[in-house]
Amino acid sequence: MLHARSLALDIQAGRLTAAEVMDGCLAAIDAREADIGAFVALDRTAARRKAEAEAKGPLQGLAVGIKDIIDTRDLPTLYGSPLYEAYRPAADAPIVREVVRSGGIVLGKTVTTEFAHLSPGKTRNPHRPSHTPGGSSSGSAAAVAAGMLPLAIGTQTGGSVIRPAAFCGVTGYKPTFRTLPTLGMKTFSWHLDTMGVFAARVQDAAFFVAALTGRDLDIGEETASSPRIGVVRTARADKADAAAHAALEAAAAALSRAGATVSDMVLPDEVEAADAIHPTIQDFEAFIALSDEYDRGRDLLSPGLRAHLEAAAQIPVDGYDEARRLAKRARQRLGDVFAEVDALITFSAPGSAPAGLETTGSPIFNRLWTLMGTPCITVPGLTDPSGLPVGVQVVGRFGRDRAALLVAALLERGLA
Amino acid sequence: MLHARSLALDIQAGRLTAAEVMDGCLAAIDAREADIGAFVALDRTAARRKAEAEAKGPLQGLAVGIKDIIDTRDLPTLYGSPLYEAYRPAADAPIVREVVRSGGIVLGKTVTTEFAHLSPGKTRNPHRPSHTPGGSSSGSAAAVAAGMLPLAIGTQTGGSVIRPAAFCGVTGYKPTFRTLPTLGMKTFSWHLDTMGVFAARVQDAAFFVAALTGRDLDIGEETASSPRIGVVRTARADKADAAAHAALEAAAAALSRAGATVSDMVLPDEVEAADAIHPTIQDFEAFIALSDEYDRGRDLLSPGLRAHLEAAAQIPVDGYDEARRLAKRARQRLGDVFAEVDALITFSAPGSAPAGLETTGSPIFNRLWTLMGTPCITVPGLTDPSGLPVGVQVVGRFGRDRAALLVAALLERGLA
Repeated sequence: MLHARSLALDIQAGRLTAAEVMDGCLAAIDAREADIGAFVALDRTAARRKAEAEAKGPLQGLAVGIKDIIDTRDLPTLYGSPLYEAYRPAADAPIVREVVRSGGIVLGKTVTTEFAHLSPGKTRNPHRPSHTPGGSSSGSAAAVAAGMLPLAIGTQTGGSVIRPAAFCGVTGYKPTFRTLPTLGMKTFSWHLDTMGVFAARVQDAAFFVAALTGRDLDIGEETASSPRIGVVRTARADKADAAAHAALEAAAAALSRAGATVSDMVLPDEVEAADAIHPTIQDFEAFIALSDEYDRGRDLLSPGLRAHLEAAAQIPVDGYDEARRLAKRARQRLGDVFAEVDALITFSAPGSAPAGLETTGSPIFNRLWTLMGTPCITVPGLTDPSGLPVGVQVVGRFGRDRAALLVAALLERGLA
Repeated sequence: MLHARSLALDIQAGRLTAAEVMDGCLAAIDAREADIGAFVALDRTAARRKAEAEAKGPLQGLAVGIKDIIDTRDLPTLYGSPLYEAYRPAADAPIVREVVRSGGIVLGKTVTTEFAHLSPGKTRNPHRPSHTPGGSSSGSAAAVAAGMLPLAIGTQTGGSVIRPAAFCGVTGYKPTFRTLPTLGMKTFSWHLDTMGVFAARVQDAAFFVAALTGRDLDIGEETASSPRIGVVRTARADKADAAAHAALEAAAAALSRAGATVSDMVLPDEVEAADAIHPTIQDFEAFIALSDEYDRGRDLLSPGLRAHLEAAAQIPVDGYDEARRLAKRARQRLGDVFAEVDALITFSAPGSAPAGLETTGSPIFNRLWTLMGTPCITVPGLTDPSGLPVGVQVVGRFGRDRAALLVAALLERGLA
């Protein structure tokens, strides 16, 4: 994999040129894209030309992939749906401009599931092509895993950053809700849709979001010092397989060896209960967000999404309002938990990437944290008995992304 | 003006047809649009045809105007900017689909200022064409005031619903933040942009939002019973002219006569201080939201907006994050105020509509409430000595829109 932060430092110091790094990406794409299918669109020529120009900004001309649920003016935008085959957005989404303003180069659009929901695209898992890469940010995770890109943007409404990152063995980082602007992405649920990033290492993901936002997140080689860690298995622990449990135990042990105080933790009831609220909020909003597509393009929706929206239409507004109130209370209650610990660790997914390309796996260990809006990082480095990657998820306090990243970096080092 | 709720009841009962009501709108447009300039685009033929068809839903085939900051697939969408002259959105904004799903008919797009900021469009005040209609929802307010539409949609980031409604002598209702979906509107500030509505009377505005959302807001002839009212002049009281002060006193007296307990109230310091935070949040986000336009279409921005965004680019991210924290605390503190009162009344604007069309007036008495996310209703019925409308603003508790509407209806009746 390509280490974005190190590459940017090398370019800045004159040890490498941006064009050389871009050529490396293009060579990897030539070698692997036909098998993996991470991209919907690529502009090699423009990217190569931009890499030749002098880089401006911290990203130093590094190639970036943009999930194809996000508007780009210079590259096709399909949202994973035949309804948008002829769509040409009038403007880049702000996140795309932030990439450019930070010195990044948009090399391509990466595969999304249909409207970032469940119906998969063409992407295969770089570690084993018969397995799903996860979704909905399938292409972003796979492209980084295959060394075709150092950095990619994705989005998460349920588990669409953390899950594919875990399945593909890369770092996935979902910052605190609204750290990255979601404007110009096709909305599925405005209270849940969260922009996130993919990179090789924790420090690379942190470097990327620091560059995009100007926030103090570029942790470099720093790691957390003696953090207090809660190991959370949740009420859904029986849905995690043996490999996921083993990975979580290994992570707890690695953190403990690295100086952390690690203890098991049971979430407050209100926080646990919020997990069941997520679909109510997500689906009520999806029926509004996709109203034009549902009202006027229903025949071009996948049967699964069409049925999902038909069911969503039945959610009463009172149920939605109540769900939002419960979610707000759960967020406050979760804040109390962070008086006792600096971060939580939990499953990134029920296990490694499932076999087959029909589903992208389950967001069951992600949706609660999306609803809570907390920073989440999945840390790679562990595998199941068959050699497929298994991630461990670090969950931080709302708005305290740096602390969460430092814990994730400590875990990464501990697992290395 | 056209009383939407009464018209809908008449249509439902067979005393009127939707086509007859539509014909009345078209006749008023024929008579007045040339002087007022409320519309960017109209589709008379399609609207007439739809009105002939059987109406479905509570809006019963009533005509609705959509502010042209909101995407429509079948009518042009210009955002008040030459940058979007050739734009054709791929989808209706969800609010547009909600209008249609509720049985409304989109008759036209109404004039907005440039990107719903300050640079005015062509619209004139129906009460005195040499005066501004207010902005940024200029056309929506003017069209309802002139009887060209019973209902219109607008948006408010500073004071863009309440101010033009007050200047044009109609009811403007900004529901609690995120009651109406802002997807598919051109974002200026995602923490502030709020969808709102224009109608003749309080009950008409309430009926409209009830129809759009399915929430229990259709107050009919009901009014608040013996509410506790706080009269808030704010630290900016000296910016309100004699007519605005007289209107607020008259409103307090009318409410008192109608059985309310009315007392002067000083806002907590943290709430007052939040007013100064609004521009930090708005402008930091505007520089992100309009990044494509700024980066790639700067020459086609108005000089005022260009300079505004240039200044916005200098706002540090720490200042923005701190402003959001202070706003959150102010919202909590304002919640405490509503333990003592059921609603606040305050100025809708510094006075009646200013002369001239160069500015749309000041949002100085609106932006705090936009930031607080509270329901606001401007109630018409009073005038300045020259006969121009002066509104009074009712501010309710976050999420308690029905209670605020009932107070507004009591005030409206008291002023009649």
